[in-house]
Amino acid sequence: MKSDDVSSGINRRALVSGLALLPAVSGALLSKTVQAQVTPSAPLKSWNDGPAKQAIIDFVRVTTDQGSPKFVPPEDRVATFDQDGTLWVEHPIYNQVVYCLDRVPRVVEQKPELKKIEPFKTVLTGNREAIAKLSLHELETILAATLTGMSVDTFEAEADKWLAVARHPRWNRLYTELVYQPMLEVQQYLRDNGYRTYIVTGGGQDFVRVYAQRVYGIPPEQVVGTAGGTKFGYDKDGKPFLTKEPKLLLNDDKAGKPEGIHLMIGRRPHAAFGNSDGDREMLEYTGAGDGARLMMLVLHDDAQREYAYGPARGLPDTKVGAFSQALDAEAKKNGWTVTSMKSDWKRIFSFD
Amino acid sequence: MKSDDVSSGINRRALVSGLALLPAVSGALLSKTVQAQVTPSAPLKSWNDGPAKQAIIDFVRVTTDQGSPKFVPPEDRVATFDQDGTLWVEHPIYNQVVYCLDRVPRVVEQKPELKKIEPFKTVLTGNREAIAKLSLHELETILAATLTGMSVDTFEAEADKWLAVARHPRWNRLYTELVYQPMLEVQQYLRDNGYRTYIVTGGGQDFVRVYAQRVYGIPPEQVVGTAGGTKFGYDKDGKPFLTKEPKLLLNDDKAGKPEGIHLMIGRRPHAAFGNSDGDREMLEYTGAGDGARLMMLVLHDDAQREYAYGPARGLPDTKVGAFSQALDAEAKKNGWTVTSMKSDWKRIFSFD
Repeated sequence: MKSDDVSSGINRRALVSGLALLPAVSGALLSKTVQAQVTPSAPLKSWNDGPAKQAIIDFVRVTTDQGSPKFVPPEDRVATFDQDGTLWVEHPIYNQVVYCLDRVPRVVEQKPELKKIEPFKTVLTGNREAIAKLSLHELETILAATLTGMSVDTFEAEADKWLAVARHPRWNRLYTELVYQPMLEVQQYLRDNGYRTYIVTGGGQDFVRVYAQRVYGIPPEQVVGTAGGTKFGYDKDGKPFLTKEPKLLLNDDKAGKPEGIHLMIGRRPHAAFGNSDGDREMLEYTGAGDGARLMMLVLHDDAQREYAYGPARGLPDTKVGAFSQALDAEAKKNGWTVTSMKSDWKRIFSFD
Repeated sequence: MKSDDVSSGINRRALVSGLALLPAVSGALLSKTVQAQVTPSAPLKSWNDGPAKQAIIDFVRVTTDQGSPKFVPPEDRVATFDQDGTLWVEHPIYNQVVYCLDRVPRVVEQKPELKKIEPFKTVLTGNREAIAKLSLHELETILAATLTGMSVDTFEAEADKWLAVARHPRWNRLYTELVYQPMLEVQQYLRDNGYRTYIVTGGGQDFVRVYAQRVYGIPPEQVVGTAGGTKFGYDKDGKPFLTKEPKLLLNDDKAGKPEGIHLMIGRRPHAAFGNSDGDREMLEYTGAGDGARLMMLVLHDDAQREYAYGPARGLPDTKVGAFSQALDAEAKKNGWTVTSMKSDWKRIFSFD
């Protein structure tokens, strides 16, 4: 068990206020009572009262109350979160794809022979319509060229620099500001109750690790993502370093999510959060476990404050982050909770 | 898992000598592994006073004292441990290879067509001399057949059953009892000082995860090992499960160790413990970081209480877990600590 497991399970402020209300009781009873009272004073404050908020609170209560038949020991408390569309904005295109496109001039600078080769040529024109028409294969070529072939340290420094300046066109804000405040509160609430929160994303593992700690409070070892191989070697001074290789180890999407969870965590989550067909298998895998499990999907039905897309429930079919009718039907059949951004969330972003 | 995955750790000659010592299949003697007792108040009590013990204590002091210029924040406190030969006995052959050979009858039961096919035919004869003559390729076939093709849950249950009864021929004790008491104390001492302890092993990740918590106090998510892919699917009732595939994702030996550390942890360790040439790159990678770093190698120089092998320092060259003269020279040059089992450890096992 990690050293911080115990402390992460206890919100100190809540503990202090909770203790003040307790009568003098035996040590054994005291520790039991405290464990049940670990909820912070105002969890989920950006959530409207309703079935989604209630599902989260009920799940935490039955899995952390030692008297509950569905009690989950602290070491088994694992919650997984998809990122794109679940924790931060994924429209109009995934932020990491923007990063890769933005990096093309730099890559071409270092390898001038690419300047006249597609798809780099098209990206360099800056013609958005033409770029939007690139094939999947061409996009993959760009991803490989911009995400691999450099040292892990160089990659991290470059991504960090980009994240400090690149802005989303709609809000003119840093991408890392466009995280959903209600989901940050869910993560904190779970951590306050002894859960370890993991990101399980189709995005690049190394990319997300660059900012996951400061943005979500999630350390690098709790970020599971699409991962490429690295190659160990030595620089000219004999100092060892790792180079990012264009070799796919884990495609952490759809069936790759439970596979990635097994590889990287080795435990079945008790709670899983997603928003699209890409998260279906992760929620199925989570739900196949015994006892209390929480499966939740975010439905983007708020064009005014964020975006509206489905195609479930008659929402526009925009491809990125599709929430299909089949997924909606499966959620209903399995008792998964569908959260409506429009009606369940008081605010979307911290700056709202 | 496929061919090269455990094969890099297997040496034919070692198998030849080791197989001759294989015990007959042990009886169904159930015995719980006894986790040795370690008290934080007296750290490293199985260690003799000397430079090795002092190096560990000094490292912990300078990295955990907030007034120290080499203070390491708790979130960065990561220590990695090789397993075979560093945490438990690896002679005469790796325990997991014994497991694979022991599993052959069961595999043949389920796939009777293998009964008359080599190398299964030879293993089934029980003829140790013949088994010892199997080629490396034949051994790889056995590993693939015994470690993959079943669900993750089935694999865990099978390994668990084996670990409860299989015994080491020399001590007639469960393999999980043959862990080094001084190393358990180092792990506990580091955890008591805010370090997260990881196993980084050439052995199978899924195999080691079965017992790492109860034997070492290390949870599954902190076990990094040679890992194969899994495949997500559904049983006839529509319940999802993962099948172990014969596809190698990570060969966690030599250069694969720092690569695996990056993949699974995403942080450079501050301390790394090994015992063989297979750990060289992990120690180099650890030592390439800033500030205080502890790199330590266990030298098996105690034939009486355990085994003696090198070939460094004139010790016998037995191949399994080779500690070469080149490694010894690099340790000296880089200031890595070499721990002598004979002179640094008061006792080897908890039952000594």
